[in-house]
Amino acid sequence: MVTPYYLKVKKLDFTAGSKLIVLINEEEAYHFGIHAGDKVSICWRGKKKLVVDINLSDKQIKPGEIGMYEEIWRKNSMENNEIVEMTVLGRPASIQAIKKKLLGHPLTKEDARSIVEDIATNRISSTEIAYFVAATFLYSYTDDELYYMTKSVAETGEIIKYSGTVVDKHSVGGIAGNRTTMVVIPIIASLGLKIPKTSSRAITSPAGTADTMEVLAPVSLSAVEMKEVVKKTNACMIWGGSFNLAPADDKMLKVTYPLSLEPYDKMIVSVMAKKVATNVKYLVIDMPVGDTAKILDMATADMLEKKFIYVAKRFGIKIKVFKNIGLDPIGQGIGPTLEARDVLRVLQQKEGRPMDLEEKSLELAAELYNLVKNIGMAKARKEVALALSSGKAWSKMKEIIKAQGGQEKIDSEGIELGNVTHSIKATKSGEVIKTDNKNINALCRILGAPLDKKAGIYLEAEYGKKVVAGQSIYTFYASNEQRMALALAAVDKLKIFTIK
Amino acid sequence: MVTPYYLKVKKLDFTAGSKLIVLINEEEAYHFGIHAGDKVSICWRGKKKLVVDINLSDKQIKPGEIGMYEEIWRKNSMENNEIVEMTVLGRPASIQAIKKKLLGHPLTKEDARSIVEDIATNRISSTEIAYFVAATFLYSYTDDELYYMTKSVAETGEIIKYSGTVVDKHSVGGIAGNRTTMVVIPIIASLGLKIPKTSSRAITSPAGTADTMEVLAPVSLSAVEMKEVVKKTNACMIWGGSFNLAPADDKMLKVTYPLSLEPYDKMIVSVMAKKVATNVKYLVIDMPVGDTAKILDMATADMLEKKFIYVAKRFGIKIKVFKNIGLDPIGQGIGPTLEARDVLRVLQQKEGRPMDLEEKSLELAAELYNLVKNIGMAKARKEVALALSSGKAWSKMKEIIKAQGGQEKIDSEGIELGNVTHSIKATKSGEVIKTDNKNINALCRILGAPLDKKAGIYLEAEYGKKVVAGQSIYTFYASNEQRMALALAAVDKLKIFTIK
Repeated sequence: MVTPYYLKVKKLDFTAGSKLIVLINEEEAYHFGIHAGDKVSICWRGKKKLVVDINLSDKQIKPGEIGMYEEIWRKNSMENNEIVEMTVLGRPASIQAIKKKLLGHPLTKEDARSIVEDIATNRISSTEIAYFVAATFLYSYTDDELYYMTKSVAETGEIIKYSGTVVDKHSVGGIAGNRTTMVVIPIIASLGLKIPKTSSRAITSPAGTADTMEVLAPVSLSAVEMKEVVKKTNACMIWGGSFNLAPADDKMLKVTYPLSLEPYDKMIVSVMAKKVATNVKYLVIDMPVGDTAKILDMATADMLEKKFIYVAKRFGIKIKVFKNIGLDPIGQGIGPTLEARDVLRVLQQKEGRPMDLEEKSLELAAELYNLVKNIGMAKARKEVALALSSGKAWSKMKEIIKAQGGQEKIDSEGIELGNVTHSIKATKSGEVIKTDNKNINALCRILGAPLDKKAGIYLEAEYGKKVVAGQSIYTFYASNEQRMALALAAVDKLKIFTIK
Repeated sequence: MVTPYYLKVKKLDFTAGSKLIVLINEEEAYHFGIHAGDKVSICWRGKKKLVVDINLSDKQIKPGEIGMYEEIWRKNSMENNEIVEMTVLGRPASIQAIKKKLLGHPLTKEDARSIVEDIATNRISSTEIAYFVAATFLYSYTDDELYYMTKSVAETGEIIKYSGTVVDKHSVGGIAGNRTTMVVIPIIASLGLKIPKTSSRAITSPAGTADTMEVLAPVSLSAVEMKEVVKKTNACMIWGGSFNLAPADDKMLKVTYPLSLEPYDKMIVSVMAKKVATNVKYLVIDMPVGDTAKILDMATADMLEKKFIYVAKRFGIKIKVFKNIGLDPIGQGIGPTLEARDVLRVLQQKEGRPMDLEEKSLELAAELYNLVKNIGMAKARKEVALALSSGKAWSKMKEIIKAQGGQEKIDSEGIELGNVTHSIKATKSGEVIKTDNKNINALCRILGAPLDKKAGIYLEAEYGKKVVAGQSIYTFYASNEQRMALALAAVDKLKIFTIK
């Protein structure tokens, strides 16, 4: 039987909006074993019953008293000093559910929902979230759990619906310069599909898609502004951080940071919840596999692919996971401005454009187009290539830039780069046998990226290609001499290319 | 290879004592993937090298700068604007060790030490401690880990040494009224052994040993005062909270609270670390086993006994684990004052004293005495019984009370109880077939215990004994009518005795 406690009513002149709150004395709560945030039921005059939240008071409420917020005593014409019976209904259900997961039992739909809801609404602390993340790190999710978690994370945040069918392309990340999004979106939109894209900023990489797009147009749009852009152009390329999409996901991410844990299941939930919340119906996942990517080997990629497909199916999303080998950067520019120039060179079909960026973008666009139209990859490839070569994609890009509030008149060669530059030359001739992504990132950050959008590195050598002694193999861009000095001090230790 | 960063020196007029600290810009640190508390090595002028801690600054230090505390730039005659190379040596070692445990690998001596040290000195956050507790909850300790953890927890706090051999008795808890400590200590001390006892206060029970002893004498003594008491009387009975014993243990306990996790291994470390820190050489553990005790079954008790014995052996502590069935309260009074009266009745050998309390205390005292003297249990039992019946233990108790600053002239019947009382009568005749410990606790807390020392319940019926309808089966004690009214409102729902 659940233990009831008896307390004397004290009417308070506090209000709390829609939430029903009672206050009890802090020290007494401690001895009762009751915590702030516990749910209790209160009964009085033998029958009336309410379920309320406990808050604690160390001064206003004495031991033996229960403080009633105005909503409660006014509506129920409660009197000062009358005795109420209080029964603890237990900690938030989420705490029980977290404990259950920690003991190795799978979560039900209700468990998942209660955990995610309490995370999203700050009802449980980061310590409690850490227990949950530890548990999910140790016991991977069942298929059902993956579905329940994704659904809960999506539904506890903002849901954005557009008229018509929404398609999307998502990279799981890990490869520098992988700015395919900014090529794929205008291609797909120019073919008449709706593709409103929200992207992240860089965390520890030299640029995120949102940082790069921001070189060309504002990306911090409100929901209303975004819908307007999509209505006009079928697409957008904006920063996801200004929406309340899947808020529980951000809170879990924060807790994983100190130990740099990233359970794979959490990644799937994180990606898919945002797609569910934005009502995406066709989705291509770009999954680079390699030493310096997030996914280190094909076996892991295959396992993740299966899980992505499973979750997508339960939400009625048609999905294609595009696994590809990612050993060196895509494109030649690294850093927001240099990457934006690469993207424009491809869209404008300039001579000397980075062909690896173009090819990967066409491949992803074709996969997505075929997923929607089901016309076969050969035909899809032809159509997306035509959209690019004909200039349709470039026109669409200009439309999007304009709709988001950017300068319509723009050319890849007109983009302003860091005005302090320095070329690094090959000290011997030979073949590039290794490109170190980690060192590229580190050097870009020393140069000031992504805080300084104009800082970065332009790569002139490439994995598998020959170089001759004395040739420039990469160029540093910085906004001032001091940053350049810091980067030049680092070049001996942070080798980008290994030549043999 | 570890990534070096290059930063420009900014001399600061801050000092930090013995710790070497550098400041870097917060936003830049975020992009570098560096956290406050990370250790880095810094090199300058091509060779000089220091290992320092990272702190973050959001205003004082700009991106590209590294702020040097005075200790560093003065000692090394560093100049403003010179370039230093910084290499991240990784998160505190404890973070790696926690991650290791989370992956299921046992901790080395160094791992355990680094975790415990960083917990004790607040170098890692409660979120990180939660990951560690979650890991220990999932993977029990190896024997070595138990030893390393106990040693580390003991050694990262205060170490208290007494001259001569120290003995101790410890109850793992869970049974109401189990105030054997206050009977055992004077018996053992009167037999010439040194037994300085630190106890806890109640957490969610109606009384802890420290609360009950406080009815008779002050218990919040300083280390100096305590040593004085022990020197005079061979014993003391004080509150452990005023010492810095095993501080890491308290911090881990705090983190287990929200989920009410208590891994058994953590309990062993917690108990034994305090014994090691106070240099105990002979130890009896009182381990009640039963539905309402902490240890629910004999198999668990046997497993715990083995672990206790193992750890004790590695520290050269002679130990006896006294497993006993704990189904109902010990003694008749529940609540600090009523329990103190029970204890005095036993020590004063009054008529009608609670014989279960006397017998259990004699048993524990005999076990401890025999452990030290090795004279056989029969002889030990005889000697401890004589110490009690002869009044030697009572004299010793009066010495201890006086030495701690209490009233020497004291009698069990002179203890002041709550002045509002109410007897509850049996509604039918029959045998008591169940005593509900949980409801006893709840009713005591409603009456005001342990905040109000005089509140509590005196039990007049007993498990397995007959009662007749109309007989008083228990009496409530409170300090005011309002608390009594709250308790009386609860009696129908919180049945103490089941009579059949």
